[in-house]
Amino acid sequence: MKKVGIVMGSDSDLPVVKKATDMLKALDIPFEAHIFSAHRTPEEARAFALSARENGFGVLIAAAGMAAHLAGAIAANTTLPVIGIPCKGPVFDGMDALLSTVQMPSGIPVATVAVGGGVNAALLAAQIIAVEDKDLAAKLDAKRAADAKTVLEKDSDVMSRLS
Amino acid sequence: MKKVGIVMGSDSDLPVVKKATDMLKALDIPFEAHIFSAHRTPEEARAFALSARENGFGVLIAAAGMAAHLAGAIAANTTLPVIGIPCKGPVFDGMDALLSTVQMPSGIPVATVAVGGGVNAALLAAQIIAVEDKDLAAKLDAKRAADAKTVLEKDSDVMSRLS
Amino acid sequence: MKKVGIVMGSDSDLPVVKKATDMLKALDIPFEAHIFSAHRTPEEARAFALSARENGFGVLIAAAGMAAHLAGAIAANTTLPVIGIPCKGPVFDGMDALLSTVQMPSGIPVATVAVGGGVNAALLAAQIIAVEDKDLAAKLDAKRAADAKTVLEKDSDVMSRLS
Amino acid sequence: MKKVGIVMGSDSDLPVVKKATDMLKALDIPFEAHIFSAHRTPEEARAFALSARENGFGVLIAAAGMAAHLAGAIAANTTLPVIGIPCKGPVFDGMDALLSTVQMPSGIPVATVAVGGGVNAALLAAQIIAVEDKDLAAKLDAKRAADAKTVLEKDSDVMSRLS
Amino acid sequence: MKKVGIVMGSDSDLPVVKKATDMLKALDIPFEAHIFSAHRTPEEARAFALSARENGFGVLIAAAGMAAHLAGAIAANTTLPVIGIPCKGPVFDGMDALLSTVQMPSGIPVATVAVGGGVNAALLAAQIIAVEDKDLAAKLDAKRAADAKTVLEKDSDVMSRLS
Amino acid sequence: MKKVGIVMGSDSDLPVVKKATDMLKALDIPFEAHIFSAHRTPEEARAFALSARENGFGVLIAAAGMAAHLAGAIAANTTLPVIGIPCKGPVFDGMDALLSTVQMPSGIPVATVAVGGGVNAALLAAQIIAVEDKDLAAKLDAKRAADAKTVLEKDSDVMSRLS
Amino acid sequence: MKKVGIVMGSDSDLPVVKKATDMLKALDIPFEAHIFSAHRTPEEARAFALSARENGFGVLIAAAGMAAHLAGAIAANTTLPVIGIPCKGPVFDGMDALLSTVQMPSGIPVATVAVGGGVNAALLAAQIIAVEDKDLAAKLDAKRAADAKTVLEKDSDVMSRLS
Amino acid sequence: MKKVGIVMGSDSDLPVVKKATDMLKALDIPFEAHIFSAHRTPEEARAFALSARENGFGVLIAAAGMAAHLAGAIAANTTLPVIGIPCKGPVFDGMDALLSTVQMPSGIPVATVAVGGGVNAALLAAQIIAVEDKDLAAKLDAKRAADAKTVLEKDSDVMSRLS
Repeated sequence: MKKVGIVMGSDSDLPVVKKATDMLKALDIPFEAHIFSAHRTPEEARAFALSARENGFGVLIAAAGMAAHLAGAIAANTTLPVIGIPCKGPVFDGMDALLSTVQMPSGIPVATVAVGGGVNAALLAAQIIAVEDKDLAAKLDAKRAADAKTVLEKDSDVMSRLS
Repeated sequence: MKKVGIVMGSDSDLPVVKKATDMLKALDIPFEAHIFSAHRTPEEARAFALSARENGFGVLIAAAGMAAHLAGAIAANTTLPVIGIPCKGPVFDGMDALLSTVQMPSGIPVATVAVGGGVNAALLAAQIIAVEDKDLAAKLDAKRAADAKTVLEKDSDVMSRLS
Repeated sequence: MKKVGIVMGSDSDLPVVKKATDMLKALDIPFEAHIFSAHRTPEEARAFALSARENGFGVLIAAAGMAAHLAGAIAANTTLPVIGIPCKGPVFDGMDALLSTVQMPSGIPVATVAVGGGVNAALLAAQIIAVEDKDLAAKLDAKRAADAKTVLEKDSDVMSRLS
Repeated sequence: MKKVGIVMGSDSDLPVVKKATDMLKALDIPFEAHIFSAHRTPEEARAFALSARENGFGVLIAAAGMAAHLAGAIAANTTLPVIGIPCKGPVFDGMDALLSTVQMPSGIPVATVAVGGGVNAALLAAQIIAVEDKDLAAKLDAKRAADAKTVLEKDSDVMSRLS
Repeated sequence: MKKVGIVMGSDSDLPVVKKATDMLKALDIPFEAHIFSAHRTPEEARAFALSARENGFGVLIAAAGMAAHLAGAIAANTTLPVIGIPCKGPVFDGMDALLSTVQMPSGIPVATVAVGGGVNAALLAAQIIAVEDKDLAAKLDAKRAADAKTVLEKDSDVMSRLS
Repeated sequence: MKKVGIVMGSDSDLPVVKKATDMLKALDIPFEAHIFSAHRTPEEARAFALSARENGFGVLIAAAGMAAHLAGAIAANTTLPVIGIPCKGPVFDGMDALLSTVQMPSGIPVATVAVGGGVNAALLAAQIIAVEDKDLAAKLDAKRAADAKTVLEKDSDVMSRLS
Repeated sequence: MKKVGIVMGSDSDLPVVKKATDMLKALDIPFEAHIFSAHRTPEEARAFALSARENGFGVLIAAAGMAAHLAGAIAANTTLPVIGIPCKGPVFDGMDALLSTVQMPSGIPVATVAVGGGVNAALLAAQIIAVEDKDLAAKLDAKRAADAKTVLEKDSDVMSRLS
Repeated sequence: MKKVGIVMGSDSDLPVVKKATDMLKALDIPFEAHIFSAHRTPEEARAFALSARENGFGVLIAAAGMAAHLAGAIAANTTLPVIGIPCKGPVFDGMDALLSTVQMPSGIPVATVAVGGGVNAALLAAQIIAVEDKDLAAKLDAKRAADAKTVLEKDSDVMSRLS
């Protein structure tokens, strides 16, 4: 199976990234994670992206906050699908990171998920790999069913929690 | 090759969708487009999503404006990757559609591109298919090179345009 | 009396919903509450809405956060009045939920109240039922008078609280 | 049938209100419209609201822009359901009117629709009346079916419009 | 000297109002404060405004949060200058209250100060009275000088606080 | 009667200012207008403010766009009441000017009106002068009555305009 | 004199850049302009920045819209001062570009000017060079004086333009 | 070496300024810091700016919150480069300060850094001085290399922190 590559701009993004890697582990998807800053280590970020396809990666995830250029910087150097996770910074609740990640110019897409959306970034990566992987697709369907069951179990006693 | 399925919430979204379908055509990627509203024809939207994988689709794209629920409604009924294009409505420059599309709850990702980002939605769909399709990956690399050449040609006479 | 149906997208919305159900209880209005996610249990949400009128519901309330599609998903499947409560999520103070709830396209209205407005959702539901129920209308008038009296009692000693 | 009362803050809101009254006419719902400003004619706005129930109104709609206090001022003087339409003013695309209309304090709900949402305000009023009016409910269901048919007709030739 | 009338929409606004009344006391300006809600006690708010000039008030201050209609409701019923203090509510950091207070339609001004700006509301009221009161103007000038002195005293040891 | 002093930051603000001066003329209030930029002619702005009270001004109005410092710069140099008009600039619909004008720090109030609110700035200035001028107060009451009459005249034929 | 290097992300930014280069010409400051996209030609952007100091540049200016990463990408590859001009894109009035440009992480500053602020970017570049260039500083002082004179000339006949 | 002048509007800005002065000390750049409010001590702020160049300053930094006029007020009185740090105030996460600082009118630039960006303000000041100071430029390059090394050290054990 192709690997998922995960890059974060700073170790302050680790809690968000860990939600992603925990989900990848639960789905038995191999991954490799790095701390590469678009601005402080631009060479490493670029080199990682340029060689990602030949190094066996199928999807890349980039998590960053503030003027979050990381996903775009990765996407500029590969034609693999790149998923961007905007992270909440010290101000603006991540709106700066969201706009910096999603408003990419024509030609260089970044598949953006919700602010802090580590779980969904992992699931989206899995869905992309599952396009040609029936076993993984089945796992994703099973997870959906399990999620639904959890909701319905909570539904079953909601009236008592409201009384 | 797996098809790209495109759903739009209203025919007012056609100009944005056409940018996507023109790009898919340029890349020789088969697609099928529909107008299905998450709110006015929820059954059709749901049925399309539920059967998309078995009907040969590999990626879905949903374009909608205002309280843009379409991408999420599609994503709720398939584990195929779903790309959301927020469209500009009569007010707020598409911020309503962007937040309605990108801020999905954990479990149901939508790969969101820029407001009005039809071209990038198509390219992202192509990148997803290209994960397991070397020919398409080569085409995407070639397009990147051509885009870069266009920029550099414009660079070559920019000084004269500024005088 | 027709029942009020309340749907929330997640049990994290329970504190907001409880404000609504406490008010409905105070007004002796029957209700039924469910946890149905627009995205994780779309079938159940849809089935509930489709059968709501025949099951004796007169008004529906939907509470959800982030890309809050729940009220719209309910409204798409019934012509009963649907009241939407946008809930505050991890970022943006509920602006994402507000826009996702209120900016509904023409044809499918959602009666939106303030972010976290559980009490007002219940009162609005009561006002809707009271259009044809004089006793309930009288109760609502009495509550208004009581609320006014509470304000005026606070007014009576405000000068001492400021000294 | 109970009447729908419509109040607008200025005749600049007439285009939005006309969308509402055209829909009410199409549904054969009686209505009465007024221009009463919450600020320039507060007495008339208040008197209209105070006597609305006894004057045969079942639902009220208020349309206003900028610091849109009209819906709240009406709601403060009646326990009938009040629907607020935020109107786009000279700046901010109606965000000022939306927040002024929807963020009502606990005790005085306003059922807020989208910015400029005249059609939906009328439909919501109709849905409220239809809670106890099976004929009107049937009309609303029929309109829903017709809207869906329109979408599906557009769907039928969308591929040709994209070529 | 004419009195300053202060109205707040709820006792949750007391901390902001107290900053205003403490400043008025420091300037020996008589005032009277009330809790009158634009929505829960509209009659009292209106009656207060209608009779304010004849009751010896020279300036009115209104403090309210969320869809803050209070200042506008007061201003609609008097031609005395009305100062609005937008108060921070449970979400949006007071942006809802700011827009609801400042974006008044032509004809009915509200002199709006910063979110939570109790001190400045009192000072603005004092400045208005001081237009025809030289002693108060002198007090205001003296307070300005004292404020400046405080800043300059802090300036004198700032280098040591930075070491 | 004390004069109203009006300062604008640029002649692009003239259309907004003219609405103010036309209203002042209609009320027979003397005024003097200047173009003084807080940034390009800080000396003149400061000198005007410092000498305003002794030069017979009773109220000052400042109109500016973008990072609108003018009202604050005037207010920093006088204890006369200063009214700020935020003007719409090339982007952000005047939100930059609104926040730059209204969010003044404690000690230096600016009485802020709506974006582009030239008429209301003039009326607020008039209301301030009218605190001690019964004739002007009567004129303001008469204008209010005339405005109300205009609204009610429009109300009288609104039903025909909607048919 | 050291040169000013100007990079824009697309030729749609030329009108903003031309305002900058016209000002640089007026000040006799040598410059070189390029179209290098952070995403479409990342190598060229990077190479330009890496060699800028040794190639005789003293200050760099980067103009870009949407998710405007260009200034940050340049700044990541040089320790020369980098000035960022956020450009207005198809939506959000340039707020996306502003936040993408100004919210840089600690370690890599971008000197951000107003949205579309081509003139000010050039003046800021000139001010930076003028720190060690008395002749240029004198030119800047002269331009300030000329700007002030222009304002005061407009001030001289403003009363007639208002009558 | 020319000094860096730092002005803050209030001692509540000291934590942000200290990040700047600590960085300046680490780079052995002389500085002088002051608390001068644009509104409470406008004379001192102006005098400081007017004499800054002749007093040996090469760059000025201004930190302020809310309607942050300080950087603009300094910039209006000098042609030295002025760096603005928007500071987070009681509401809006510093968006008010950001817009008040960055949206300067043509003619008077302020080099704006991120909200709370004390470190970057200092680095930008250093970069400006380093345009003509090779030793300082070398120090800045060394700091960049050290920052990169820190990132890469964190990268080396990130996989273990995720397990």
